Amino acid sequence: MDPIDFYFDFISPYAFLASTRIEQLAQRHGRTVRWHAFRLGVTVVKVMGLRPMLETPLKGDYTLKDVARVAKMMGEPLVSPITLPDPRPAARLLYSVSTQRRGEFAKALLRAQWAGGLDIGKEEVLRGVAGELGMEPAAVDHALRDPGPKEALAAATKSAIDRGVFGSPTCAVGTELFWGTDRLWLLDLYLSAGERYIPFERQAQAVLGVHLQ
Amino acid sequence: MDPIDFYFDFISPYAFLASTRIEQLAQRHGRTVRWHAFRLGVTVVKVMGLRPMLETPLKGDYTLKDVARVAKMMGEPLVSPITLPDPRPAARLLYSVSTQRRGEFAKALLRAQWAGGLDIGKEEVLRGVAGELGMEPAAVDHALRDPGPKEALAAATKSAIDRGVFGSPTCAVGTELFWGTDRLWLLDLYLSAGERYIPFERQAQAVLGVHLQ
Repeated sequence: MDPIDFYFDFISPYAFLASTRIEQLAQRHGRTVRWHAFRLGVTVVKVMGLRPMLETPLKGDYTLKDVARVAKMMGEPLVSPITLPDPRPAARLLYSVSTQRRGEFAKALLRAQWAGGLDIGKEEVLRGVAGELGMEPAAVDHALRDPGPKEALAAATKSAIDRGVFGSPTCAVGTELFWGTDRLWLLDLYLSAGERYIPFERQAQAVLGVHLQ
Repeated sequence: MDPIDFYFDFISPYAFLASTRIEQLAQRHGRTVRWHAFRLGVTVVKVMGLRPMLETPLKGDYTLKDVARVAKMMGEPLVSPITLPDPRPAARLLYSVSTQRRGEFAKALLRAQWAGGLDIGKEEVLRGVAGELGMEPAAVDHALRDPGPKEALAAATKSAIDRGVFGSPTCAVGTELFWGTDRLWLLDLYLSAGERYIPFERQAQAVLGVHLQ
C-alpha cells in the first residue's frame, strides 16, 4: 500500500495542527508517513504567482482567525499572535537526519514554533530542540552549513511541485492530493473506502452538515 | 438570532454544492438564509491581486479534481468538464426578484449550470430557468437591462468585501466567516455550540480524522 506523503513548510501553523494527527490517521489505515519539508515561498510566489497568504488582503485576516479556531476545535495550543519564522534552517536540519527520524524532528520543531512560541528560525532554538532529541550541537551546526541538506530542501520542493503540491500541509497518496488540515477527514474517508470517493452518507452528516432525515 | 448570509458567485461550482445543503443546515439551527451573489472577479483579481483560481498553476488542476470528488461524496451530480459561465446575467436576474424568492432562484440557476450543463451566461437559458419559476420572459429581459439589478450586484460585492468576504461560497454569521463548502461542518458545529468554538471530541473524530481511544 502507498505511504502517506506529508508535504509541509515549517512556516505554516496549519502544518503543525495536521502534524499532531497524521500518524494516528496513517496507522488506522496501516500506512506509513513520509515527511517532506518544502518551500511555500517557491510554490506560492514563484510558481503560482500569488502573494504570501498573510500579505493577501482579506485572506490574510481570515486565515489568522481561522487557524486559531481550528486549533481550538482540535484541542491544540497555538501561539498568539502568529509571527512567521524563517523556515529554512529547520527544514535543513530535518534533511540532515535519517528518514526514520524525520517525523520525530518535524513534529518537535513544529510544536516548538507553533505551540511553544519559540522562533525556529534561530540557531540556538534549533540546538535546543535537537538536543532534546539527542542530537549534538556540532551536528546541528553542520546541518545548517553543509550544502547537502540545503540541496535536499531544493530537491524536495521541486519534487513536490512535480507532484502538483502547492500548499501546506498537503497529504499525497498515489496520485491523490489532499490540501489543508481541514482535508484530513477527506483523506480518512478516501482510505476507508479503499482509495475511492463514494457517497458517505453517515460520515457526510458530520462533515458536510448533511442531515438526511 | 443572526441569519446565515450566504455569499456566492454563480461562476463557482463549490457554491452550487453548498447551495444544496445550506438551507437544511440553517433550519436545524432555527436560522434563515439570506442569499447574496457577489463578484469573485472583483475580490480575487482587483482586491486581493491574485489570479483567477483555474488560471493559477497547480491550484487550477487541483481544484478541478477536488470539486469533482466533493460532489461525488455529497452525492450531487456535477457537469464535466467544468466550463465557467459569465456569472453577471444570472446575478442581475437574482437581484431583480424579491429577497424572499432569491434562494429559490439562486438554487435553480446554480443547478442549471453545474448539474444541468446549461450556460447561465446566456439569456435564453435564463429565460428557461426563470420561466419554470413562473417569471415572464419580459421580466427577465427587464432584469438584464435595468440598471437597478446591476447596481445591486455592485453594491453587494462592495458589502461582501466590507465584511471580509473574498471566496465563494462564504457563510457569514455575525462577525464569523466560513469560507468553502468544506467548512459547512465548522459552521454547523459553531452554531451547535451556541456560536462558540470548543473542542468537539466526538464530531472531530469524524471531521478531523481524530480517533481518541
